[in-house]
Formats: sequence, structure tokens, C-alpha cells
Amino acid sequence: MNYYSEKDIRDIVAKVVNSSLGEAPAVKGNASGGGEGILVEVSARHVHLTVEDVETLFGKGYRLTPKKMLSQPGEFLSNERVRLVTDKGFMQNVAVLGPERKRTQVELSATDAKSLGINVPVRLSGDLDGSGDMLIIGKEGSINAKECAIIAQAHIHMTTEDAQTYQVKDGQRLSVQLASDRPVVLENVIARVKDKSKAFLAMHIDFDEANAACVNDGTKAFIVKRW
Amino acid sequence: MNYYSEKDIRDIVAKVVNSSLGEAPAVKGNASGGGEGILVEVSARHVHLTVEDVETLFGKGYRLTPKKMLSQPGEFLSNERVRLVTDKGFMQNVAVLGPERKRTQVELSATDAKSLGINVPVRLSGDLDGSGDMLIIGKEGSINAKECAIIAQAHIHMTTEDAQTYQVKDGQRLSVQLASDRPVVLENVIARVKDKSKAFLAMHIDFDEANAACVNDGTKAFIVKRW
Repeated sequence: MNYYSEKDIRDIVAKVVNSSLGEAPAVKGNASGGGEGILVEVSARHVHLTVEDVETLFGKGYRLTPKKMLSQPGEFLSNERVRLVTDKGFMQNVAVLGPERKRTQVELSATDAKSLGINVPVRLSGDLDGSGDMLIIGKEGSINAKECAIIAQAHIHMTTEDAQTYQVKDGQRLSVQLASDRPVVLENVIARVKDKSKAFLAMHIDFDEANAACVNDGTKAFIVKRW
Repeated sequence: MNYYSEKDIRDIVAKVVNSSLGEAPAVKGNASGGGEGILVEVSARHVHLTVEDVETLFGKGYRLTPKKMLSQPGEFLSNERVRLVTDKGFMQNVAVLGPERKRTQVELSATDAKSLGINVPVRLSGDLDGSGDMLIIGKEGSINAKECAIIAQAHIHMTTEDAQTYQVKDGQRLSVQLASDRPVVLENVIARVKDKSKAFLAMHIDFDEANAACVNDGTKAFIVKRW
């Protein structure tokens, strides 16, 4: 067995951790020291609808029509648009994502929520109990949707293989650096791990987070590991 | 002199640093483990003007009039308002801060810059070479201000005593946690250290950063120390 002196230990500790106090790295870069970074996709405000709500908003028997496929398998931006209305304001021409879901959900940024004058919780997709209400207006009708509006919690979609590579588990909270010219570390980013057929490696953030970090097309995300 | 085994060293290293891999803290809190946190103030878009530009915009001999004093000694929100115009858009009713300065400066968020359709660099106040141009319109006239528009880099105003407490130097880049319900660490936050008569301890961020972290009135900032 090897034995070490106090000084040896100080040297080892200094090697293991960054010994500078309070001084942050000046340059953008790879916070995890390893991989090539994760694709960052910025979500604008959008709506997911049930089949029933699609019919109320666009007409009996109507189904959402794909305009553009998104990175997550099967998901698409539809040609349909809705208007969101509160007693304080409205937003028009809001994107509807397909396919239809089991529950109607409105995803806003904090900036949107303020401009609409409503309190909306930060939540993962699908976690809607106690979330905000919203009047949604379509071409053929409107719905007064209860508990549907959230600010989407930042998350990383990944396959089970990616999860192994990054050594993370489904649902795990991660600290993730947006390695832009104005770098920001988002805490409480959730790993969403699915089978390869249902997931594509990408981090999803909203426009507040993107603008706070001045994210552009080339910006990558790096999971911050704590040693 | 004491001597330690491999296991002792592993235990010491584990105590010095957080040994969890990639798992971020779930709760908001005091990232630096020490103080009570720093006041966070959110700056909306605003303009600083020279005496000359004040006269052009509001009339010969005109001076800015204080509406409300700000936290930094001598600084105030004025009663005056301007309109900012680009070829892509405009913003009206924009705040003018006083007193008059040596150089005219427009501070926008990245969201504002996008909405105005212009490229604006992230800079510290006063660092204007190569920054954006802006048409500024007042009650009595307008100016086509060259190299005046920036996205303000997040910073912490502090006294020399505060700088001693936090063990930081003027101009030092810091990582700072906004300890909100949606915690975010901003990197490259600049310490701006001044004499007690000219500074009041407060972190200044813009609305993109505030909304990305869902900052509210009670949110405190904590300088993240790297051990």
C-alpha cells in the first residue's frame, strides 16, 4: 500500500479539482471535458391537442396535418395555428405540434406568461395538475382548457445508448452548460431516456433560456459532471 | 508529519468535492455555502445620454429630471422617454437613466435586439467600439447614434469591502447562481468594484436572464466558488 504526506494530498486534491477561487472560465467550451456536445433545439411557444380538441377547434373529423417533421421520431410541426387568449392579452398564430396527444398542453416561456398576465408553473411535459388555464381559439371553434399551460422544464431527449454514454438515468436532474459566447449553466435539466426508435439526442430549451445564453445554430450543450 | 493511505485520500477528496456524477441539486439554495446572497436587480431596456444628445432630443439647455433614484449612488430613472427605431422595428417609451454620461449608450436584451432585427454584442457598460447603431427619437429631435447599442453583460456592483468579503477583484469573471425555483448559473459575470460612496452591492441582469431563471423579488444571487 502506498502512503502519502500532507503535501502529496494537497497536490492530489489540487489536480482533482480546479483550485481557483471564484474565477470562471473566460471562453466558451466543453464543460464536461469529454464529448462533442449535444444538439440544442429552441422551442417557441406551442400547443399539443387531443383528438377531441382538434375536432372542436378545426371541425368534426379533422386531424392535424404535418408541415415539417421534428427531431423526435414521429413528432411534427402542423399546418394548423391557434390563438391563445387570457383576460390580460393574447397570442396569435401559435404553432400546434402533432400528432394528437392524450392531453391538451400549452407550452409558454416565462416572457409569454408575463405578457399574458398569468402564473404558469415550470413543469415537465405531461405534468399538468395545478397548471394554468387557457382559452384556445381555432378556425372552427374554441376550448376553455383547464390545467394545460406550463413553462417547459429544460430537458435532454436521449436513447438508452446515450444514457449509458453519459452515465445518466431517465428522470435524472442534470446541470447543463450552454457553451455559447454568453455561457450559462441550467440546473434541474431532466434526462428523458427512451428506446432508440422513440428518441433522438437533443436538448430542448425555450426562448428565454436561449436568449439569456445568446444561443445560435452552432451552440452545443455539455452535461456538467461533478467530481 | 502525518501519512495517509490511498483510502484516506479517496475519503479526503470525496469530502472536498461533491462526489456525485452529473446529479445537480434539486432545490434552490446557497451555492457558495456561505453568505446570505446578493440582491438581484433586473434591468429593462434603457438608454444613457450625453448632455449634447439630451439637448438634441429634448431641447436646448434641457437636463434629465429624476423620477426615481436607483440603487447605485447618484443614478436615477428619469421622467424622459425615447423611441428606438431600426429598419426592422421600433420600441417606444424606452426609459432614459440619469445623470448624463460621457457617451450615449443603448442597453437591450437579446430578445429586444432580435425584435429590432439588429446584431448587438454582449458588452460591459462603456465598452462600445464596434457595437450597434440606433436611431433615437425624443420629443424635440432625433439622433442617429453610432456604436451605442449593447446587450449588457451581467455584473455585480460592489464596494471594496464587499470585494474583500467575497475575495474577488475588480473586473474578475465570476460564475453566479440565480437561486430561484428555476436555478441558473451565469458564467462570465463581471465584478465591478468601487469605493463605498459610488457602489451598492447588487447584481444586474437583463430580462432574458431573469426570465430564464424565473427570478422574482426575493431571488438572491450566490457567487459560485470553485475549490
